[in-house]
Amino acid sequence: MADSYTELEKAVVVLVENFYKYVSKHGLAKNKISKSSFRKMLQKELSHMLTDTGNRRAADKLIHNLDANHDGSISFDEYWVLIGGITSPIANLVRQQEQQSSS
Amino acid sequence: MADSYTELEKAVVVLVENFYKYVSKHGLAKNKISKSSFRKMLQKELSHMLTDTGNRRAADKLIHNLDANHDGSISFDEYWVLIGGITSPIANLVRQQEQQSSS
Repeated sequence: MADSYTELEKAVVVLVENFYKYVSKHGLAKNKISKSSFRKMLQKELSHMLTDTGNRRAADKLIHNLDANHDGSISFDEYWVLIGGITSPIANLVRQQEQQSSS
Repeated sequence: MADSYTELEKAVVVLVENFYKYVSKHGLAKNKISKSSFRKMLQKELSHMLTDTGNRRAADKLIHNLDANHDGSISFDEYWVLIGGITSPIANLVRQQEQQSSS
């Protein structure tokens, strides 16, 4: 990969590499992460963001839904959507800042 | 926001801020990005990744689909999913590296 990646491209790579950090050797063949690994990842990698009430609520709901079906696992596309859902309260925060700075 | 963010959290913030960089003042009220802004963003912010054939194909398909409906705009959730779709070939690359290093 190029060294001259943009800030966005570097951020994308961080998100991708984080997924594979939590894929087990067994999971690598299926290209999936287990739900228990996903929960561990949330606690370890998104701990600061999940202290915000809005995000915590989103994560609790998500984890509850994950718990409902113990046997499943999470693909990269699902991981991506799940992270996006948890972090959309961050988007609302950035939006408020933008609105304040442009008003 | 905390200064002690993890690498993943910082990456998430980059992705969120990049969305708002391409939201117009008019778009801020609706919290949406125009499709033409999205195309501009792809060209400017993901230029290195889109030189890979796999990603280029995904982006071309995406842009074609965006072009099919000129009047729409893209929400944060849609933006997140679209970026994820474009970058999933990167995931395949990282996966191959992981498989090689664990075999």
